[in-house]
Amino acid sequence: MVYLTRLEHFNAAHKLFNPNWTKEQNDEVFGVCANENWHGHNFDLYVTVKGIPDPHTGFVYDVKKLSKLMKERVITPLDHKNLNLDVDFMFGKMCSTENLAIAIWEQLAPHLPQNVHLHCVKLYETARIYVEYFGSGK
Amino acid sequence: MVYLTRLEHFNAAHKLFNPNWTKEQNDEVFGVCANENWHGHNFDLYVTVKGIPDPHTGFVYDVKKLSKLMKERVITPLDHKNLNLDVDFMFGKMCSTENLAIAIWEQLAPHLPQNVHLHCVKLYETARIYVEYFGSGK
Amino acid sequence: MVYLTRLEHFNAAHKLFNPNWTKEQNDEVFGVCANENWHGHNFDLYVTVKGIPDPHTGFVYDVKKLSKLMKERVITPLDHKNLNLDVDFMFGKMCSTENLAIAIWEQLAPHLPQNVHLHCVKLYETARIYVEYFGSGK
Amino acid sequence: MVYLTRLEHFNAAHKLFNPNWTKEQNDEVFGVCANENWHGHNFDLYVTVKGIPDPHTGFVYDVKKLSKLMKERVITPLDHKNLNLDVDFMFGKMCSTENLAIAIWEQLAPHLPQNVHLHCVKLYETARIYVEYFGSGK
Amino acid sequence: MVYLTRLEHFNAAHKLFNPNWTKEQNDEVFGVCANENWHGHNFDLYVTVKGIPDPHTGFVYDVKKLSKLMKERVITPLDHKNLNLDVDFMFGKMCSTENLAIAIWEQLAPHLPQNVHLHCVKLYETARIYVEYFGSGK
Amino acid sequence: MVYLTRLEHFNAAHKLFNPNWTKEQNDEVFGVCANENWHGHNFDLYVTVKGIPDPHTGFVYDVKKLSKLMKERVITPLDHKNLNLDVDFMFGKMCSTENLAIAIWEQLAPHLPQNVHLHCVKLYETARIYVEYFGSGK
Repeated sequence: MVYLTRLEHFNAAHKLFNPNWTKEQNDEVFGVCANENWHGHNFDLYVTVKGIPDPHTGFVYDVKKLSKLMKERVITPLDHKNLNLDVDFMFGKMCSTENLAIAIWEQLAPHLPQNVHLHCVKLYETARIYVEYFGSGK
Repeated sequence: MVYLTRLEHFNAAHKLFNPNWTKEQNDEVFGVCANENWHGHNFDLYVTVKGIPDPHTGFVYDVKKLSKLMKERVITPLDHKNLNLDVDFMFGKMCSTENLAIAIWEQLAPHLPQNVHLHCVKLYETARIYVEYFGSGK
Repeated sequence: MVYLTRLEHFNAAHKLFNPNWTKEQNDEVFGVCANENWHGHNFDLYVTVKGIPDPHTGFVYDVKKLSKLMKERVITPLDHKNLNLDVDFMFGKMCSTENLAIAIWEQLAPHLPQNVHLHCVKLYETARIYVEYFGSGK
Repeated sequence: MVYLTRLEHFNAAHKLFNPNWTKEQNDEVFGVCANENWHGHNFDLYVTVKGIPDPHTGFVYDVKKLSKLMKERVITPLDHKNLNLDVDFMFGKMCSTENLAIAIWEQLAPHLPQNVHLHCVKLYETARIYVEYFGSGK
Repeated sequence: MVYLTRLEHFNAAHKLFNPNWTKEQNDEVFGVCANENWHGHNFDLYVTVKGIPDPHTGFVYDVKKLSKLMKERVITPLDHKNLNLDVDFMFGKMCSTENLAIAIWEQLAPHLPQNVHLHCVKLYETARIYVEYFGSGK
Repeated sequence: MVYLTRLEHFNAAHKLFNPNWTKEQNDEVFGVCANENWHGHNFDLYVTVKGIPDPHTGFVYDVKKLSKLMKERVITPLDHKNLNLDVDFMFGKMCSTENLAIAIWEQLAPHLPQNVHLHCVKLYETARIYVEYFGSGK
């Protein structure tokens, strides 16, 4: 097995806000992240796949195809968007980086070829905070 | 003269939108940056001051004081805010990174001691785009 | 399971020196790192915790609480300190980055809530050297 | 167990080209990477070893020795070289980053002391693409 | 005046070789950089323009246009190319980073609008070596 | 004119302490930086020289020679040292980053060839604080 990782970026607005709570509860738990007028981030997304290198190409997966898949299924729906308002696969979910990473996994996993396995979605919210998701069994 | 630079961060939402134009004109000029539901960035702000090192401290300016000034006058007003809606010193201005850098300069310049000169405001919107402003005479 | 990581920094002095050895033995094994007058580093500390995102917040753990815990238990005791002389939890230990990472783990692990598990302490001594510790069973 | 990682760099030329295919097939699969006149990269190589810290030194492995081993077995043979033409341990292999990482593993693994285990070879081809190899059983 | 900078990347092969010298002279002066089979780099290119922000857009220059210009005039001709063999605007020149930066300036300067001035071409050959060119009068 | 920059690193201990002041005065002005047991940093040093590229080499200055000069005159005297105790060219000076940058300039300037001019010494104390010095007339 060899693991191949590709980085893509997107810039988006969001807020942390639980609609079942009062404004005071949201402010207490989420602090400045609950600003009703939104804030935003430059997100860095690392997607890792694993597999056996193909003997004819030396590739686990063609990184151009991985990049294209990430752009179609994740970057285009998220880039320059409001994560709470504009993204169908985030509707009805708390808009944390954890939940966003899980949703990105679900956007990508069904579209990989059979011999290529999604291993990790690593999502930086800032240079100092990131989450990793390795699928529902891990 | 020695030049001293301090980096601070803020995360904010904004959009590029000229209220004198139609939605179509805004979309044509600003593209995805005109998304009416906002997008956002992790901004990196480098502020450079210059002066003669003090013989008693070796400092051009105490970097803790520079950091405190940046936080009070710039980071607190901008961090986890909507740059179009929440920031008094951006009201009525096009919310470009260029105009934000100029506004940050104006927030800082009057508050430095007499022997310390503001030299540069350098503002990264993304890791691939930044602007610099050296004051109105440069 | 989702993994959440937070970066904090500290700057410290140390030396590599085995008190049971002669100066010559120390110089031979540790080279310039044995300088009796100390040297120092900007340490970057990444702490990773894992857990199930809370349905009400979307959080594995509130990253503000993780940051506060790291500051109280690790950064404040280590920042702008001499690791050999000033840090009670390093007394009597060889002051290697490996041992420092283990000690940081032990500072943090008892203070996490029950549903949040410490996964990794990753400590950069320089941009080119880092160690990782995953607990005593790994 | 503690994991210790060292970063070294090398700059090299290569092309992606399968000699059993026509030029058209190579161009179709590899695109600009098949340019017959070569292209190149600054490769960043992270090598991770694991072990129990030695009680006398606090070291899993002396990082100076790890650096020396990487330079002798990997960096000197690869730096400022053409990976397809100049490197004996790449002859007859597709010159992908995946295959290069496996070959680097094989260059290093036999030369570590018995109590130090090679854990990972992580190779960045660009800042946005990297591969990891953990040995033949992983 | 505000200064606006955009980063783009290209990966290329080259060698340092003076055709008026013997192989021995080239090896003596250029060392491993003279390898006749080429080596290569990931080049990072920062282009800075300056001007007065437009009152209608807040822009010195639309960064999407700057990116497009860089791609058309510089990145496409250089990316995944051999700088000595494949690039018409480098023919007959010593292929140093200095000369490449000057040539990039000349590729860009004639194509900027009248109110936007090219200020700096900054070209990283590696993370530790870069050159800057500010035009022929500076 | 083309500007050429080289990065080198050193790791050192220091403290900020004015011997003409009481401990209380030092603590008040310098805070944790006055810790009598020292602290330390990974310093990043960027040295920029300028000149006309040589027609035979394409070089402003051979970057290998610049690196060698930096190592001999600056890195070797500073790396893994105590800046207050071990460095002759810092004796009797306040050990600020500002004064260190000036001292590094004075170490380098006399040793450059006549057609190569020292332009800037840029010294990072941490990733968030740096100083620049352009010589006594600037």
